[in-house]
Order: sequence, then C-alpha cells, then structure tokens
Amino acid sequence: MFAELTHTGSTCAMMNLSNRPLPLHVLRAGDFTVPMNDRLFTRAREYEERFWKDRKGLAQTHEGMILFNIFYEESSRTIASFAAAAMHLGMKVHSTQNAGQTSSAAKGESLPDTIRIMDGYLPDILVLRHPADDGAAVAAKFSAVPVINGGSGRGEHPTQAHTDVYTIEKRMGRIDGLTIIIGGDLMNGRTARSLALMLSMYRPAKIIFVSPLEVPMGSDVTARLTERGISFTETDDLRSALPEADVVYWTRVQKERMPPELYGKIKDRFIIGQQQLALMPEHAMLMHPLPRVGEIVPEEVDHDPRAGFFEQAHNGMWVRAALISSILDRTLYAP
Amino acid sequence: MFAELTHTGSTCAMMNLSNRPLPLHVLRAGDFTVPMNDRLFTRAREYEERFWKDRKGLAQTHEGMILFNIFYEESSRTIASFAAAAMHLGMKVHSTQNAGQTSSAAKGESLPDTIRIMDGYLPDILVLRHPADDGAAVAAKFSAVPVINGGSGRGEHPTQAHTDVYTIEKRMGRIDGLTIIIGGDLMNGRTARSLALMLSMYRPAKIIFVSPLEVPMGSDVTARLTERGISFTETDDLRSALPEADVVYWTRVQKERMPPELYGKIKDRFIIGQQQLALMPEHAMLMHPLPRVGEIVPEEVDHDPRAGFFEQAHNGMWVRAALISSILDRTLYAP
Amino acid sequence: MFAELTHTGSTCAMMNLSNRPLPLHVLRAGDFTVPMNDRLFTRAREYEERFWKDRKGLAQTHEGMILFNIFYEESSRTIASFAAAAMHLGMKVHSTQNAGQTSSAAKGESLPDTIRIMDGYLPDILVLRHPADDGAAVAAKFSAVPVINGGSGRGEHPTQAHTDVYTIEKRMGRIDGLTIIIGGDLMNGRTARSLALMLSMYRPAKIIFVSPLEVPMGSDVTARLTERGISFTETDDLRSALPEADVVYWTRVQKERMPPELYGKIKDRFIIGQQQLALMPEHAMLMHPLPRVGEIVPEEVDHDPRAGFFEQAHNGMWVRAALISSILDRTLYAP
Repeated sequence: MFAELTHTGSTCAMMNLSNRPLPLHVLRAGDFTVPMNDRLFTRAREYEERFWKDRKGLAQTHEGMILFNIFYEESSRTIASFAAAAMHLGMKVHSTQNAGQTSSAAKGESLPDTIRIMDGYLPDILVLRHPADDGAAVAAKFSAVPVINGGSGRGEHPTQAHTDVYTIEKRMGRIDGLTIIIGGDLMNGRTARSLALMLSMYRPAKIIFVSPLEVPMGSDVTARLTERGISFTETDDLRSALPEADVVYWTRVQKERMPPELYGKIKDRFIIGQQQLALMPEHAMLMHPLPRVGEIVPEEVDHDPRAGFFEQAHNGMWVRAALISSILDRTLYAP
Repeated sequence: MFAELTHTGSTCAMMNLSNRPLPLHVLRAGDFTVPMNDRLFTRAREYEERFWKDRKGLAQTHEGMILFNIFYEESSRTIASFAAAAMHLGMKVHSTQNAGQTSSAAKGESLPDTIRIMDGYLPDILVLRHPADDGAAVAAKFSAVPVINGGSGRGEHPTQAHTDVYTIEKRMGRIDGLTIIIGGDLMNGRTARSLALMLSMYRPAKIIFVSPLEVPMGSDVTARLTERGISFTETDDLRSALPEADVVYWTRVQKERMPPELYGKIKDRFIIGQQQLALMPEHAMLMHPLPRVGEIVPEEVDHDPRAGFFEQAHNGMWVRAALISSILDRTLYAP
Repeated sequence: MFAELTHTGSTCAMMNLSNRPLPLHVLRAGDFTVPMNDRLFTRAREYEERFWKDRKGLAQTHEGMILFNIFYEESSRTIASFAAAAMHLGMKVHSTQNAGQTSSAAKGESLPDTIRIMDGYLPDILVLRHPADDGAAVAAKFSAVPVINGGSGRGEHPTQAHTDVYTIEKRMGRIDGLTIIIGGDLMNGRTARSLALMLSMYRPAKIIFVSPLEVPMGSDVTARLTERGISFTETDDLRSALPEADVVYWTRVQKERMPPELYGKIKDRFIIGQQQLALMPEHAMLMHPLPRVGEIVPEEVDHDPRAGFFEQAHNGMWVRAALISSILDRTLYAP
C-alpha cells in the first residue's frame, strides 16, 4: 500500500519517511474487530468524562498537531464533527470544503496529486470525503499521513458505523442479544449497510431489515450475516416489527431513487411518529444518522426519551476524537 | 425557552445539562440596558488596551474554548470579526459559511436539527446568521450552547448596534445630549433600525432621520422614541440637517427596492462627499456600517478625521470579544 | 505607500499606528536580492529541521499570532500551504475563500475597503490572492498589516518563485552554473515568468526557454536576462534541449489560449513521459508548479528520483513559514 511513495527516493527524504512509521488509516469498517472497537469506545468514554472534569488538560493532549479536512462533497456536519473532535484534543484544523470545485481539482488535478501535495504540508491527519467509492483507499495508497475515510461514495462511512455501534452500546449496555431494526432505503443507504456489516462482528439476537420490497438490503450484506450465523429477517411491515425491537435504526426512503407512484404508495409506511412510537418497547432506542427530512416527525418524537439521534451525533464527535488519537499514538489496530 | 431540551432526558444526560447553567444568548438589542452596555463597553476598552500591552496574556484568557460560526448568509466581514475576536481571546474557531447550501440544510434539515447537532459537538459559543427574522430566536430555543445573533433576516443585528453605540461613546465621550443623523433607506436597513432602538435607551438631544420620503423609518421605531420621550424629526433634506449633527450615521439607499425613476431622482441627494462634509461641524463623526457602494465618496471623505467607519469596524471586533467573554463568565446580563 | 493611512488621524489612533513600525509586505519577486533569499532559505531549512527535532518548540514560536487568508480566486493548495506554514509556527488561521463572491465584495465593496476592515481585526499577516495584476500592491497601499502576495492576476506570484529557487538550490546545491529549461506556455504562465526573473539575480550557465513558437517568453523577461548578461536560448524542440539540462521546469501548455488545430499539432511535443526522461541527465531534476493536467505522465515519471514536484510543493510550505516569520521579526529585507 505504501509502494508508490517509498520508491521515490526524494520524496522519502523530503518527508523524512525513513524515520517515520507507516501511517495508520481508517478506511473500512471491516478492518475493525470487537476488541479494537472496545478499546476505541473506552477511549471515547474517557474523553467525554475528561472533558467535563478536566477540559483544559484534554485540550493540551495534542497541542500543536494539525488535522486537515478535505471534502469533495459538502457536509457541514461531518466537517464540524471532525473539527470539534480535533479541537477538543488541542489540535489545529484546516478545512477545504467543496474541494472538487474550489481547488486544483477544478483544473483537473487527480486525487493522488492532491493528496501528495497536502501530505507535503505535514498535517497529522487527513480526513477525506470523496464521491468515488474507493476515494479513501486511493488516497491512503499515496499518503504518508494517516487518512480517515469521512465517507466515500456509496461505499463506506466507517466513522458513522463506529458512532452507531458506540451509541447502541453506551445506551443499551451491550450489542449482543439485542434485536435491531434497520430500516429505510436499504439498497441505497450507505450508513445502514455499514452498520449491518459492523454488527456482524457482534452477536445480536436478530436484525430485522425493514424496507420497501423494491430496495432491500444488498445480498453481500445478508450473505455476510448468514456466514457469521447471525439471524435476520426482511420485511416491509414496520408496525409488526416494532414491538420486539431494542433498537430502531431509521433512515430515509430516497424519493429520487424510485418511481413517483411507488414512492407515493409506500412513503406513509416509512415514517416514524407517535403511532409507531407507541408500538416500541419502553426501553428501546430510536436512532437516525441524520439529517432527517420527514421520515421522523419531530413534534411527535423528539421529546420522547427513546429518541437517541442527537445523542448519536454527539457520540460521533467523541468516537472521532478517539479514532484520531488512537491513530496518532498507534494503538488503533494493536494496543 | 429551554423547555425543548430539558424534557429530553437523554439529551440532558448526554450534554451534562443537569450540571450546566442555562446558556446566555444575545438575540435582541432590546434585551440590553444602559448599565449592561456600560459594563460591556468597559470590557471592550480593556481588551483593546490589553491587546497592545499584554497580547499574550489576553490570548491565554480563553485558551481551549471554541466558537462556531454558522452562517446561512454570506458575510465574510462579520465572520472574520467574530473569528478575530475569539482568536484574540485565545479561542479556536470553526466557521461554516453558506450553511444553507453547503450542508445538511440543502438536504432539507431544519434549523432546530442543525443547532442541536452543532450543540452536541460542544462548542462554547454559536454565532448564527440566518435569513429568517426569528432565526436566532428559534436557534436559542433549542440550544444548550449560548447563541449570538449575527444577523437575522431584516429583523435584528444586535452586535452591530452595540458596535455603533460603543463607537459613538468612545469618540464623542457620551451619547446623551448628542444630535444624531440616521440616514439612508430607513425602511429596509436593519442596522439603522437597531441603532435607533438602542439609542432610545439613552438621552440623545435629537435624532434626525434623513431618508427618501418613500422609505421612512418604521413607525414601530418612532413610536418607541416617542414613548421614551426622545425628540426626533424626519426629513429628506440632508444638507439642512448636517450643520447641527454631532454624529452622521449613513447607510445605503437600496436601489433594488425602489422604481428606477425614483432612484435616479433621489440618489444624488443621498451621497456624502466633500460638499456634505463642508456642512458638518468640525467635531462631528461620520459613521457607516459598511460595506459602502457609492453613498460615501472615498476620495473626498476617507482622509477626513471625521470619517469614523473603519474605526467602527475595528471597534466591532472588540465589542464582540467583550460579548463573548461576558457570556462565558456570565456577567452579560447581571454582574 | 503608507500615505493613505497616516493622514487619517483617527485610524492612526485606533490601530495604534503611531507606535507600530511600517509593515513589511511581500509583493514582487523583484524586491528581493540574493542575500535576502539566502537568509530566507536558511530559515526555511532551519524550520524544516526543527520540525523533525523539536516540533513543539517550533509551534510555540508564534503562539497567539493570527494569519488571514483572503482569496478572491480559489486555490485550495495555496491556502492550505499558507495555513499549514502559519500553524506549524503556532499561529491561528482564518481563511476567506472565494472572497469575491461570498463577501461584501459581492455587494460591490472595493478592495481598499475590504483590506482596511480586515486590518481593523488586527491579524498579523494578510495573504491576498486577487485577480487584478496590481491587487496585492493596492492592498499594501492601504494596509497597516503586512500583506503577502499570494498571486495577483497574471502578474506576480512571488512566493512560488521563492519556492522554485529554494527547491533548485536545496536539491542541486546551487543556482550558479546550472542549465535550466523553462518550458510550457511561456507567454501566459506567471510562474515561468517569475522564476526567470528571479533567476536573473543569480548566475545560471544558461536558461533554455522551450515553448510553442506562438507563445514565447515575454520580451520584458528576455530583455532583463540580456541586461544581466545571462545566456539564454529559445526553442520549440524539447528533445534536443533535454540532454544538457540540470533542471527542467515544466508548465502546462494552455489549450484554451490557442486555436484547437494549433493545440492538436503541438501538444504531443509538450508532454514529459518516459521518452523525455530518458534524455535527461541522471542528476537532473524535473519540476512543476502543479497542478499538472496531462503535461507530465504520472505513471511514467512519478517513480523516478528526478521527479521533484512534490518536494517542491512541500518546500513551498517552509519557504512561506520563513517569509511569515521574517516579516514578523522584521529581518525580511534587512537582517
């Protein structure tokens, strides 16, 4: 993975590569294991506690270090989440938003060139969002600086999967044994896919995929679950599934990806409001990767203690802080 | 105002709300009193002095704290003013420019959702510019983090009003007893409105509103002045008003808001150049919220010691620094 | 140059100008001399070494100071380069990208007004990129804060010229006595022009300008070389020039500036790949200001130790750090 750089003698010298260890990248949720997640989540929890007890100390842990956000697609939330995570650790942040249009990319520069140039400015972490499914992987191939995949096309969004699993574990105390609904447009939503894949590392009691029949969860994901011996069902009937759920992970049914008549026919069955809430167990949690645009009714749901989506966004910031520091102290993949 | 958050148990826990005092917001100029302004302006002056004497010490006062600029409308000047204010206090800054297009808002996310998500990243201050007249008020309703209104639609721009009153007081030594011209398109300019409202808390000798007859100051503002017993007149004749002015607060006549033939007829009477300057007393000050685009003639006016508009922009930065720190140490509304 | 500010008494007082020395600007490559460059490059080298040995110490040298990037044209690379340079020195950075559209400029504000307002926020350095050839010069005229020209129209890009000369000297050990090819669309490329002008201060053995005959190097530049007694030739035949080159500085042939049939005819002769590399001496270096969009073939060239363009981008960051600190400690033009 590092070949492109190491065979360039001059680049080696310039970046002092011979004295630097190989960078640790965060590219795919599938590169993680339960013990790795455990370490990561422990650190996220420690950071949160320390913030409230010793914020100043926390903000000195990574003073003088630098994170670059390089976003080819706009996402003010994810950029701000990484920026805040780095800042709470004391790092400085520089963000390039809309890199595809505001930069050399508009003049036709390739991603590998952009990455190698940004590398040369010696940031400690590059966070990349890119429209190509293999954007982060390509970047990592050329980068002497650790790359965090902040979302690559319709492929992966690993820090969201970490956020989701961390949130379930934090609120429910565990993943194993839970019944988890994952719902929405499962064919097209990358967060639903990533979550299911990461859950396959655990022992949930059951995963219930709820989607319009036209946009089911991909067979690569269900094959993985089968392979791991994890029980799952598929249905388009949310109401019958809700009573047994410990967690409801809800996403948007993407209007623009289906014929208007189909969308009109199904959309009412894919909205969570008071009636759906009434069917959910008292102890359950409702999650959503956000933004939501109608598939959860704010006035009917937000006041309910089961609503966990803002907590989820908040947790994501601490998970990202833990990822950043675990890369920098090299405990991410091995303690 | 805080209800939306406090009844969400989980949000409370997540944000450690039970241990945090209610946030102090800066939403409306009308929430302030003269003693509050006095405290604020004293601090602004102290910060300015300290900057030149002990800049390093000043830049350590708020180390590790974070300000988020969230701007739905573009304004590089106001963003930079808040950013510099926070940075001179030692804070870190993350700015989302053009939040309406570059973010989840483009996907249809509501302002309350955006605010609650940004809150979860634990900044110390949110500065919001929003096109809706009640943008900042809505944000404050949902925010556990202090919100500063950085301009809401055509409604309020309170930090500009503070800047203006501070500038008058700093240069002229007082507000009471002064004759103050407020001129331009008074119906549509929010800075002129906010200034008049804030002046109504003081005892100026007289306010002279100078505008085309078609776009007079709103009757809500003049009613307030009457109620407070503050003398004012309205005219479209700048030249006759100038000789008695201690302060001339000039704004743009907004071409796009009137018929072309009207604009052509009046515009020459609403430009300040050498001839108008000749009619102003020697001790007077000419102000403008900036940007200016023709209503003050640079070559004829900028060299004159009465020109106070760049000083005004500069003062705004220190006023914002004082607002930020008075929120954070909770002395803003009560010492 | 400073007149506009000093005759405004009030601005003087506000900015504490009477107690501040005149700002040092970086506007033109031609304002520098070899001894000035030597000092600058020595510092760039020291910063690079210190980064690897004592990064924390380096990041404390300019703590609390502030750099503003004000870019009227988009350039995520140059913005990031200045941002990283300042951050590695411990400074805080605020960047306005696309200032022409996202700001008061869109409302018609003039550059002098924008600069005076930004000045009032008391940054330590303003980096300006502006589409007008005299953008930086105009800004400097009105600024009490040091202005660094980050690229002005088709005129100047002095920090790129410094980067290029520094890179040659660092890799080759010297400038004097070298044979340097400068190639591409020499009529329209400002980096090629700036480099040739800065090389004219040294004693290279020869400069070979390689370009389509239709877009030769400007006669003002060649006149300067003649005046300084520097030998140069002009050709459109890259292959015959390559064997004697110590340095090949390659730039883009700008398709959009010539008739399509001409471009089609010549473009193949202005691409550097394996065949061209085979003609270059073993010790030579290939440079490019980047971004490249086809005029250097990545798969054939990037692995070659002679490829120096990423090193060049990296060097630019340290040269900019050296420029920033030499302005701030006032050793830039005189030690």
